[in-house]
This record gives sequence, C-alpha cells and structure tokens, in this order.
Amino acid sequence: MKAMYLEKPGLIVEKELPMPSLAPNEVLVKVKAVGICGSDVEYYTNGRIGNFVVKAPIILGHEVAGEIVDTGQNVTSFQIGDRVALEPGIPCQKCEFCKSGRYNLCPHIRFMGTPPIDGAFREYIAHPEAFTYKIPEYISFEEAALLEPLSVGIHAARRANVQPGDIVAILGAGPIGLVTLQAVRVRGAAEVLVTDLVDFRLSIAKDFGATEVVNVGNVNKSCLANYLKACDVVIQTATSAEACTQAFDFVKRGGRIVQVGHPPVSQVPIDPNLLIAEELDLVGSFRYTNTYPAAVKLLGAKRIDVKPLISQTFPLQELQVALEHVRKHPDRCLKVMIIS
Amino acid sequence: MKAMYLEKPGLIVEKELPMPSLAPNEVLVKVKAVGICGSDVEYYTNGRIGNFVVKAPIILGHEVAGEIVDTGQNVTSFQIGDRVALEPGIPCQKCEFCKSGRYNLCPHIRFMGTPPIDGAFREYIAHPEAFTYKIPEYISFEEAALLEPLSVGIHAARRANVQPGDIVAILGAGPIGLVTLQAVRVRGAAEVLVTDLVDFRLSIAKDFGATEVVNVGNVNKSCLANYLKACDVVIQTATSAEACTQAFDFVKRGGRIVQVGHPPVSQVPIDPNLLIAEELDLVGSFRYTNTYPAAVKLLGAKRIDVKPLISQTFPLQELQVALEHVRKHPDRCLKVMIIS
Amino acid sequence: MKAMYLEKPGLIVEKELPMPSLAPNEVLVKVKAVGICGSDVEYYTNGRIGNFVVKAPIILGHEVAGEIVDTGQNVTSFQIGDRVALEPGIPCQKCEFCKSGRYNLCPHIRFMGTPPIDGAFREYIAHPEAFTYKIPEYISFEEAALLEPLSVGIHAARRANVQPGDIVAILGAGPIGLVTLQAVRVRGAAEVLVTDLVDFRLSIAKDFGATEVVNVGNVNKSCLANYLKACDVVIQTATSAEACTQAFDFVKRGGRIVQVGHPPVSQVPIDPNLLIAEELDLVGSFRYTNTYPAAVKLLGAKRIDVKPLISQTFPLQELQVALEHVRKHPDRCLKVMIIS
Amino acid sequence: MKAMYLEKPGLIVEKELPMPSLAPNEVLVKVKAVGICGSDVEYYTNGRIGNFVVKAPIILGHEVAGEIVDTGQNVTSFQIGDRVALEPGIPCQKCEFCKSGRYNLCPHIRFMGTPPIDGAFREYIAHPEAFTYKIPEYISFEEAALLEPLSVGIHAARRANVQPGDIVAILGAGPIGLVTLQAVRVRGAAEVLVTDLVDFRLSIAKDFGATEVVNVGNVNKSCLANYLKACDVVIQTATSAEACTQAFDFVKRGGRIVQVGHPPVSQVPIDPNLLIAEELDLVGSFRYTNTYPAAVKLLGAKRIDVKPLISQTFPLQELQVALEHVRKHPDRCLKVMIIS
Repeated sequence: MKAMYLEKPGLIVEKELPMPSLAPNEVLVKVKAVGICGSDVEYYTNGRIGNFVVKAPIILGHEVAGEIVDTGQNVTSFQIGDRVALEPGIPCQKCEFCKSGRYNLCPHIRFMGTPPIDGAFREYIAHPEAFTYKIPEYISFEEAALLEPLSVGIHAARRANVQPGDIVAILGAGPIGLVTLQAVRVRGAAEVLVTDLVDFRLSIAKDFGATEVVNVGNVNKSCLANYLKACDVVIQTATSAEACTQAFDFVKRGGRIVQVGHPPVSQVPIDPNLLIAEELDLVGSFRYTNTYPAAVKLLGAKRIDVKPLISQTFPLQELQVALEHVRKHPDRCLKVMIIS
Repeated sequence: MKAMYLEKPGLIVEKELPMPSLAPNEVLVKVKAVGICGSDVEYYTNGRIGNFVVKAPIILGHEVAGEIVDTGQNVTSFQIGDRVALEPGIPCQKCEFCKSGRYNLCPHIRFMGTPPIDGAFREYIAHPEAFTYKIPEYISFEEAALLEPLSVGIHAARRANVQPGDIVAILGAGPIGLVTLQAVRVRGAAEVLVTDLVDFRLSIAKDFGATEVVNVGNVNKSCLANYLKACDVVIQTATSAEACTQAFDFVKRGGRIVQVGHPPVSQVPIDPNLLIAEELDLVGSFRYTNTYPAAVKLLGAKRIDVKPLISQTFPLQELQVALEHVRKHPDRCLKVMIIS
Repeated sequence: MKAMYLEKPGLIVEKELPMPSLAPNEVLVKVKAVGICGSDVEYYTNGRIGNFVVKAPIILGHEVAGEIVDTGQNVTSFQIGDRVALEPGIPCQKCEFCKSGRYNLCPHIRFMGTPPIDGAFREYIAHPEAFTYKIPEYISFEEAALLEPLSVGIHAARRANVQPGDIVAILGAGPIGLVTLQAVRVRGAAEVLVTDLVDFRLSIAKDFGATEVVNVGNVNKSCLANYLKACDVVIQTATSAEACTQAFDFVKRGGRIVQVGHPPVSQVPIDPNLLIAEELDLVGSFRYTNTYPAAVKLLGAKRIDVKPLISQTFPLQELQVALEHVRKHPDRCLKVMIIS
Repeated sequence: MKAMYLEKPGLIVEKELPMPSLAPNEVLVKVKAVGICGSDVEYYTNGRIGNFVVKAPIILGHEVAGEIVDTGQNVTSFQIGDRVALEPGIPCQKCEFCKSGRYNLCPHIRFMGTPPIDGAFREYIAHPEAFTYKIPEYISFEEAALLEPLSVGIHAARRANVQPGDIVAILGAGPIGLVTLQAVRVRGAAEVLVTDLVDFRLSIAKDFGATEVVNVGNVNKSCLANYLKACDVVIQTATSAEACTQAFDFVKRGGRIVQVGHPPVSQVPIDPNLLIAEELDLVGSFRYTNTYPAAVKLLGAKRIDVKPLISQTFPLQELQVALEHVRKHPDRCLKVMIIS
C-alpha cells in the first residue's frame, strides 16, 4: 500500500508499505477521506509544534474516515463494508484520566500524526474497535472525517457549559471557530458574535448562523459595542495572544472564557483582581473526549452541517500540493480534504 | 376596570374593579394577552386542583403579557409603553430556596390564579418589577404570554440535563409536551420521540421537529421499538399514571426520567432494583426558575417558535366561552388566548 | 493452590487448582484478606440473587486485598511485594459507559463472585493492573479489603451530591449503611440520622459520628421528629420495601433520595405529584466507579476508619463456618474477614 | 448610641448617633462582636482599596454578631433576645444574579464597611431579616462573627469543587487561608499543603489539620516536591502576585486553581498553552453566596472550629488601638475581635 511521509519540512514523499498487521481488537480500514488540519501544515512547514518535534519521517493526518476491510478476532461490533470514522487518539485506558472519562488528558495517549505516531495519509490503517464509529449512508466520508474538528468544537462548547439563551463570542473563524459556532448553536446559544481578520471566513460564519460577524482588523469596531462585557461565554479559537486578552473585554460578570486556540507565546497577562471581582472562569479545552457518538447523531439528524467547511479536495498523491495550497491561501480555503 | 371572576365552578362573572394600587417596586400593566392553561380549565370545571380549592370568587389566568401604563417610584428598568411579559409567581425572596436560585420551591410563593391569589383575566394588573420582562417589538403579545408555558418546558429540559446528541422521549403532546419538545431540541437533542393519544397534537409535534410521533392508543406500536431502552432522557408531560410507568420502558441505562405531568393518582409503582441496577435518575420538575430571560432571547432569536400552539383567540368578555371551548375540544385546540 | 467453591447452596468445598496464568496486563496476587459480603451469604444460602443464578460451582468473594507475587510483561506500575487492593469489577473499556467514566454501568463487566465469574476465596488470583491499587504499609490487608464496600458508600454519597452542612438520613446500618455514614461525613454532612432495626449496628453508627440513631422497630419514634421533611439527602441502604417509602418522609423540599439497598420486591409505590411539587430527585446508585484512588487516600489520611466494622476473622479453610456465622448472627456481626 | 468612624486614614473618632430606624423587614441588633478584616486595616491605613475610596467619614466593620433587640413589623422568624450573625452584603434581589442564586455578583449590593456603606463598629445596627441568621447558645458571638470570613473559605472550596480524597494546596495562611483550610477539609480533602511566609500562621495551619506546611520564604523548599504538579486543587489566598504564578506549579493535569487573594497588581502572566494542554480551570472566587446556613450548621456540629483564629479582643472604644495592633503584628495576630 502507499503512504505519504513527511520526509523533512517541506518535503512529502510517497512510499510503499506492507499492509498493517491487525491486532485482535482492531479493524482494518481503507482510508477514504482525511482532512488537513492546521497542525499538519505546521509540521509540514516547521517540523515542530511546541515540544512535539518531527525527528524521523512521519505520516501525518488525523481527521479520518474510511471503510472496514477486515476485522480482528475479538471485534464484535463491525463488519467488512461498514463505513466508519476514526477517533485519532488512542488512550491507555489504565490511568485515572481514562477511567474517569477524561481520556483526552491521558499522558500516554497515542495520537495519529503527532510525532512519533504515524497518521492516516495512506491507503490502509489499523485502528482499535473502541475508537471506531459507524456512520450512516447519508453522511459522506468527507463529512465523517470532519467529525474530528467538530469534536474539538463540541468539547469546547461543553467546557464552556453553554446554556440555552446564552450570548456567546467566538474569537477566530478558522475551521475550529466555525465548528465551535455550530456546537454552541446546537446547545441553544441565542446570539453569537464571531470575530476574525479574514472576511471570507466571516462570511461562512454568517452562513452558519452567527448573529454578528466582525473583522477586528478593520478600524470600525462599533458593531462590537453590544457584546462588550455582555457575553455569558467567550471561546477563544484564534492563535493570537491578543485574542486571549480580548476575551476579557467580552465576558460578562460571572461568565466563562474557554481557551482553545494555541497562541504562539508562553505568557499572556490576565488581571487577577478582575477574575475575582467578577468571579470569572478561565478554562482550557484540549482536543475532546466522548464526542464522537453525539457528533455522529447530530450530523445524522442534520442538526449540524459541516459540508460548507470543505473548500477543496485532492487525491492522496497530491498531498504536498494540498498542503502548499492550505499554507498559501488562508483567505480562501478552510478545510482541504485528501480523498482516495 | 373589568375583571372576570370564577364565581363558582362553571360560572364566570364580569365585575367592575377599581384600578390596582401600585407599590413602589411595581409596574402597572394593561393586560393584552392571557393564555388559558389546563389548570384554569380544571378550576373552572371542578373548583379545585389537589389541595388548592377555590373557596371564594377568584380571577384566574397566569400566562400574561401586556403594556406598561405606570411605574412605581422605585422602578428603574421600565418606562410607560414598554411591552412586557409577567412571570406569574412572586416568591418571598427571604427563604433559602429564593436566595439559592430555586425560587420555584419557595413555600411562600404567591402564584397568579392559584387560590387564593387573583390572576390576570382582567384589564389591568400591578406586578413587581423584578418579575417583569421586556419583550422586543417583533414578539407579539400572544407569543409573549406563551413564555410562561415555554418556561415549564425549558425548566423540564434543564432538569433533564439534555445534552447535544441525546435521544429523548416526550410522553404527551399537549401544550407542555410541545414546548418541552422545543426546549429539548434547542439544547441539541438529536432524536425526539413524542407520544400522545390525539393525532392532531402529534401532527404539531411533527411540525415542531419530532423525529417520530406515535399514537399510543393505536394497536400498532412497532414504531416505538427503536426507542425502547434507548432514550437518554424521558420527559413525562402526560397526565396519566400509565405514562409514569411507560417512562421506564424508554429510558436507557444510566438515563434520566423527568416527571412534569400531574397524574390523577397518588401512587405509581416503580421498580427499585431497576432504579439501582441501571442507576437511573427519576426527578420531578415544578414550574420553573430563572427561565424568562433565556426564553425571551430564544424567542427573539427565532430559535424557538410558539405561534403554532395558538389555536384560537377570544376577547376578555368571552372568557367563559373560551374555557368551554378548551374543555370540549382537546382534539383540535391547543392553546387558546384571551386578548384585549 | 487452594480455592473454596460454592458447590451448591449450603455447601462449600475446598479444591486444588493450578496457579492462574498471567496475561501481559495482569498482576498475580497472593490473597491476604477477603471480606464476606451480604451477597456472598445470599448466594451461599439461596443460590441466586435476582437474575444471577449459580448454575455451576463458583468461587465467591469480591472484597479483596493481597500482595503481588508476579507481574505480566506489560505491567509498569507494580513490583513484586507491593501490597494492593483489587477492584473486583473488570469492565470492557470499549462501551460508551466505560469511555465516559461510568464503567459501573458497563453491560459487559466481569465482576468477581457474580455468576459465572469466579471470585477471590482462594490463595492466588490474577487481576488487571488497571484495577489494582497500591496501599501503604499502615493500611492493613483487612482494611484494604474493605475499600470495596467503602467504595459503595463513597459512590452513594457522590450520587447524593452531599454538600457541607447538609442534614442526611441513612436508612439501614448494615455494613453499607455504616460506610455510607463515613462517606457522607467526610463530605461535610453536619447532621446524620441513622435508622435500623438492630441496636448493635446503631451503636456502631453512633461511634462513627451519627448525630442521632433510631431503632425504627421500637414504638417510640419521637426522635425522628426533627428529621421529618428536614433532610437534604436520604440514602436508603436497607433491604426493605418499607424503607423505600419512608425515605419520602425524611426528604425535604428540593432534596435527593438515593436508593442503594435492594428491597426484595419489584414494585414500591411513589407519589408522582409529591415528586413534582417538591421537585425531588430519586436516583439509584449501583456499585461504584473511580472510587478506589480517593478511598485509599482517605483511609491513608485517617479521614475514614473502617476497622470497627470488622467483627471476626476466619482462615480460608473455614469459609463455610464463617458464612454460617454471618448468616446466623446479624445482631452481633457486621463484617467477617477471611484471612490467609 | 456610639459609633466609631474612620474620619480620615489613620484616625478613628467616636461619635454619638441616634438609634437606627427600623424598616418593616429589618431587625434591630445590639452588636456584640465584630472581627477586624484585612480590608478594615487597609481602609484605615490607605483610605482605599482599588476603586473603592473613602471620601467621607465611614463606619467600618462587616464581620458581625449580636442580639436582637427589636423587630420590624413584617419580620416573622426572629424574636427579641435571639442571638444572630449578620451577612453583611445586602443584594438588590431584582437582578439576574440575585434571582439565580449568585447574589455575590449583584452589581447593586450594599456591603457593610465598603464605601460609602456604613458597617458595624457601633452599638446598634438595623439589618434585613433575610440576611440574618440565628445561632445556637453554644456558639459564642465571637465565633458567630467569624462566620463571615468562614463563608469566604466555604465559597472558595465550593468554587474549587473539592472532592473527597483530593490533594489540595492552599497558598497563604492568613485568616482566609486558614478558614479555607477548614472548608476543604470538611469537604474531604485527604492531603492539604499550606504555604506562607510567617511561621506563626503555619503553626495554626498545622493545628487545623494541614498535612504539610511550608514557609516559602525559606531556602529549603524540598517539602514542596511531593506537591508539584500533584494537586487536584490549588486555592490562592495570598495577596501576592508570585503566588498567582506559583499556583501553576502545584496544580495537576485537569486540575483547578481558585484565586481568592487580591494581589496588588493588575497583571499576572499565565501560560495559555499550558492551560489548554493540561485542560486547567482558573477561576475567581468573590465573597460568598448562600453559605451562612451551612456555616452555622458546621460550626454547631463542631465540624469546623474557628476559635483558634481569635488572637485578641478589644472593646469598641479601643478600635483604633486594635487596628494598629493588627497592622503592626502580622507575625503574631490573626483575627482581632471588637466586643461589646
């Protein structure tokens, strides 16, 4: 089978691999669609994200859907031909975090496409049954691959404890901001402000039901006035340090700020006395846990729509072209899919 | 001003009253729309509901919207001309329940149209500022009056802790069942089964987005099969003892049953060993607390629609005709409004 | 090695077994102490509990502590010589309940000493690392075995959501009632009423810090007066249908009833209108989930004391004598330990 | 009656006042004990705390207990002679925060001894029934006055969501740190580290059950090693910016930091990527809400002991001496009481 390796920053190389061996608790999946995530582009460009460094050739890709072509001997819930989405993190299932339902915090988790664990830009992949999810006929493989970023949004909205009627600000309208928008709306947010620096992204936010979209790069920010100190929840999905600080401009007394986007700094200043006097919550949201079953049902019931996120599709062999495309065109591409 | 009194069961009498006096913390409201609730019909028909007995002539009506015509001297947040909805229960604000946010449990609450407290089937009513809520132009008075039953549904869905992706069963498709349907959908329920004995009501449920509607009076209940032991949440809004028992047929392991409808019995049997072995929750939901601000925002944002609930409108003087109409035609009327 | 089999109701037989084989993720444990649970006595006496029927000889016993004598090749956190307690239920770790932290509800759980799974009345047992817990030197094996019933109490108190300052009623002062007493006190219950029919048990409850103990078999129940409709939480640990009903006498408006004890009936009547009007919660509590780490720390910090529960100890070979002893002397024995 | 006014920073003046007039919902209280809070000392010394500035003579003092000498005409739950504690903040009971149980966030709250609202360093004070709490005979007035700082600790521990078995770090062992220590222990914390710069305070922490106390001013901090990245909860009660940062050294993955102490800076740096990757919660805790009933019961049941906090007592006329004493001797005084 073929696999696309990141040989070194800026270079993707196609290699021939033997078919994966199959453990008793695993399914073998013919990969059909893999979304390109910002982290894939980051590894491709710079070879590292924070402490995670690409030290050897690696297969990237962790937003995956496909079709089952074989099942391990202990697998009971899948059959050959089943259409599935794969949850890309495989936790240890032994630690306190795994046993208590917060497996996203498992220190031993093996996460596809995060060095040194290989990901899914290849033809076939073996995956544990426990983290494989059946998808109905009327969800396409491309949509199913997007259950992964959607999960990030669902988890962030859950960490935010969004309640029906809430006023919400989402800072950043990249793919994560946009799925978070969907996730807060499906929990009953009454009004949602979305901010970004790219009009194209804000127009998608508008289509997705944002009440107000504001390009914070423009001089005229008067549209923000209604939302200052008025939001029950602020979810920060932008990768900018400024946005971390801005979150405090929007959050209302007693409100909640959720940090999802990774700013490229190790320090942002916060006002501890404001945190106390307004009894704010500032919480991090990391990946997701126990989101796939709900996400599949919400997508199946058409309560959430991710199709408009898909800007382009490329075949597996053109992965490098696709990565370059994403890298160069943030102004007109959101989610690029690799399909087989 | 005119007021319509329940003189004795079956007899509504119009009387002339002086205008209400206005306390410093109150607003004076010209009543514009009042919905007829099942409890109004019950008092009209039988003169009592459980321990609440009509011992003297009383003004019924507690689903109220109107326009402010005067404000008490301490009132700061309203002006003459403001369009408002009134929350009909006025709690003591001294007891532990009031101070901790569960004022629906206040033992001293004074609730409109519940003996011996007069309600809103009249031309003017004085009401505390704290339980009066401004409504925007584009919400009609009839819709605003329905914020009251909607609140019952929002509270029930909150007690149910409905999560995005949940499968929910709602037993009973009367007005409360139907607003509960809206309330669980706005929280992200992925699939909702609604059951009732009246096809007309089920057809509205279908319009409101129910995934499946089943007339449980029919012989063929095969449509229920998918929902047996499969629902994360069951909300029982029917006034039948059978429905209390049926709830256990639908709830899944680890799930939650919310009892809202008042069955006409003081005992229903439950299986304590099932409650334990499947670690079920069975909880009551009583009226509502802190729902109006969210309800106004959800209605204003068109996340919830209550207009289809309104079957007919009658002028204040025809209250008795209206009550008879509701009493006689459960098969074709849901919510009847008295308008002025 | 030796193992004690329940050959048929009323007959325990000693057999010689080969040493258990050890899977890569398992530890081999020399059993040092096993508590006798009411369920062991029930299987010994009647051969069944509800739908669980003893159809073939079985080793009972699930409250276990011992010493590690060997470790599987993938085991990383234990060494030979470690003193450990074993959590007796091994869940599938694949289902939604396992992944979300409620593994007590796993439909595939394999629970020691519940037919057809063998338990720990034997010399050696192999057990998964993930459900094995290290205990410090100053916790005896007998105490460590009692982490299992203590876990039932900790979980019940958690399901009850006991808050500091709460007034709590615990119905039943058997071993589960008494550990629940400890668990509610450690969460900050200010006053605890304990009821039972056996004075000996109530005297232990008093020693464990109960504010009031009442023998509900006596005519004079005036001591109960202070607790009627006054308890934030009622935890029903008795195996009587009457206690299920009595719980409603104690619970206060807005309060919470937790059902732990299995009454020998399939129906108890509850008042649905009371459940609604007082917005009560009635919830089941089944075994436990994620309790062992906390229980070890609480025992280690002497925040909880289980030693007074231990009435007698017997060697493994005298298991049948011990079972008969428990069966015949509910009035003077609480927890009997089998030690090796 | 006499009252002690802060005339200007550094000057307390005794004045004669008429007896307070009594509103219908108020009780008149003969003040018996008032604790001196750090904020009293701060206003006395500097005339301001943040945006709160003493612009006119003011009576300080907000930790109050006394005896009822008269009751307003609508008061139903108190009689002359009742011994009571007063909750010093009187919220508006109209806003969303008041109605939903978070009245500590009421923007209209009138808080004793916070400019321009007079406090309790006087002989008599009128106070609303709703925020007055009966105390039993065996709680002294001095202890009852300490229900106020205790409430701060109870609320902080609640915001921290301390669970039984938790490992907790409390930074700062002033009065608030010490009551927080009590509050986390009563919720079941298994181990508590307390840090401070003053050995005297740490010795009280040890008496109050801290597992480990560390003077962070000393060179040898090896005792901290066990707690680094190991605490489920960190509660920061110190008024130092360094402590805000240190909190992140102690909190474990998935853990929770509560900020209570007001550092004298408007910015502290935090690492947003750590917040995300370890999915931390950082929350403010402001005063308290709905704590008095629980606090009275915990004190009454001897689950919490505040007496050791009381270092000295002074009569009302010696208020200035007392304030100077507190100001000059942080090394040997904790809580100084003014008694009448």
